[in-house]
Amino acid sequence: MSREITSLANPQVKAVRALHMGKERRETGLFLAEGLKIVTEAVELSRPPKTLLYVPETPIHPLLDRAIEATMAAGGEVLEVTPAILGKIARRDNPQAVLGVFEQQLTPLAALDPTSAKVWVGLEKVRDPGNLGTIIRTADAAGCGGVILIGECCDPWSVECVRATMGSIFAVPIVRATEAEFLAWRESWPGSVVGTLLTATTDYRAAHYATPTLILMGNEQQGLTPEMAAACDIAVKIPMRGRADSLNLAVATGVMIYAVS
Amino acid sequence: MSREITSLANPQVKAVRALHMGKERRETGLFLAEGLKIVTEAVELSRPPKTLLYVPETPIHPLLDRAIEATMAAGGEVLEVTPAILGKIARRDNPQAVLGVFEQQLTPLAALDPTSAKVWVGLEKVRDPGNLGTIIRTADAAGCGGVILIGECCDPWSVECVRATMGSIFAVPIVRATEAEFLAWRESWPGSVVGTLLTATTDYRAAHYATPTLILMGNEQQGLTPEMAAACDIAVKIPMRGRADSLNLAVATGVMIYAVS
Repeated sequence: MSREITSLANPQVKAVRALHMGKERRETGLFLAEGLKIVTEAVELSRPPKTLLYVPETPIHPLLDRAIEATMAAGGEVLEVTPAILGKIARRDNPQAVLGVFEQQLTPLAALDPTSAKVWVGLEKVRDPGNLGTIIRTADAAGCGGVILIGECCDPWSVECVRATMGSIFAVPIVRATEAEFLAWRESWPGSVVGTLLTATTDYRAAHYATPTLILMGNEQQGLTPEMAAACDIAVKIPMRGRADSLNLAVATGVMIYAVS
Repeated sequence: MSREITSLANPQVKAVRALHMGKERRETGLFLAEGLKIVTEAVELSRPPKTLLYVPETPIHPLLDRAIEATMAAGGEVLEVTPAILGKIARRDNPQAVLGVFEQQLTPLAALDPTSAKVWVGLEKVRDPGNLGTIIRTADAAGCGGVILIGECCDPWSVECVRATMGSIFAVPIVRATEAEFLAWRESWPGSVVGTLLTATTDYRAAHYATPTLILMGNEQQGLTPEMAAACDIAVKIPMRGRADSLNLAVATGVMIYAVS
């Protein structure tokens, strides 16, 4: 049975809303995802929400009905709320009518099978959650094996990142590694490790990439650190023909992923 | 000589801050750009600000010094402000120390020379200013001839779009056209007009593109309208190999631009 909540002061509403804060996400291991599309994606990937919040409407959308059933079947909680409550939790006007609280899920580095996919993505110290989410979405679209977050990266479970993934956060294995862990693991990589560097002389279209290919991208301001650049088998550049001296990180990663795919 | 402003209530400060609003931008033909990098880019492209606001520091950065001189030489106004005022105008904490007010500049459709560049970009009804700014930045990086905004698009002069261009807003010709104007103009396009459609059967890498190539992209939700799709010589798809059913618009545009370049 679903419960009904009408008060903005309800402690459960407050607890869900607190997941906008990184500290709360770290302590609970939970995160927020908004919208029927992304909640449905989670349900289809056997990742039903721990808590499902929705604004009751008649008739109920069949996908929402299915999400409610899946949540209950997995022992989760279903809460009927008002649009005002959902707006407060989502922190925006015209919020989506459905919102889920999910368990964060990381894949251990050691559990990856490099030969299970043609292309993989490693991101060093990525800072912008919108970029990270967009890259996870691209990695999903292109069938990449996973996204490895190397060093101090922004939080993949932030609302902004999850939103930018459009649901791919549930489809793509996400891995976290320190630079030392990554460098040790990379030693046994069976294909090419490719870094994009503004100082590289090889055009990214002229290089030969051995499969599986691991694409390494640095952060928005500094690019790859010298340690990570040194760990690459191949350094390539995406040519800059105008005045702009760099591409947006998510665009550059997309260009590389599709060039190698 | 530069003037000093210390009051948040100053009418000039209010007028500059009002440029966050689309209505104010439409009525004045002005827009805001933040940061020394982007202001310098404007100055180098002979587009000095009408008004330059900065927080005085000692020693003054040589690029700021140059921007101040260029602003004055062009008859613009230079205002010394406090960090609090700049923060209020920029609407964020830790604002950049320099901010410029610039004249919007559109290129008429009829003034474009299609043969002056290999690749051009047309965007139909693009909605997200971050996507638009990122696409303008990519168009600059790849040396595209210009970006044509077709139909009702988001405002290229919004703070969010300008920020995402990283300065390329001053380097790339921006054109606005109704769908009818575009369709009439497109008749005489000397090369290929290419649309990306999820329903297309030709892989974007398998198509032959005649130069100059005009890449047409639809909006974030619906893609190209049937009228625009019908105006394409070639319809291609970017293959989706995972669960995601589409790419972010800026990423898809970037992949297409670099595939054709």
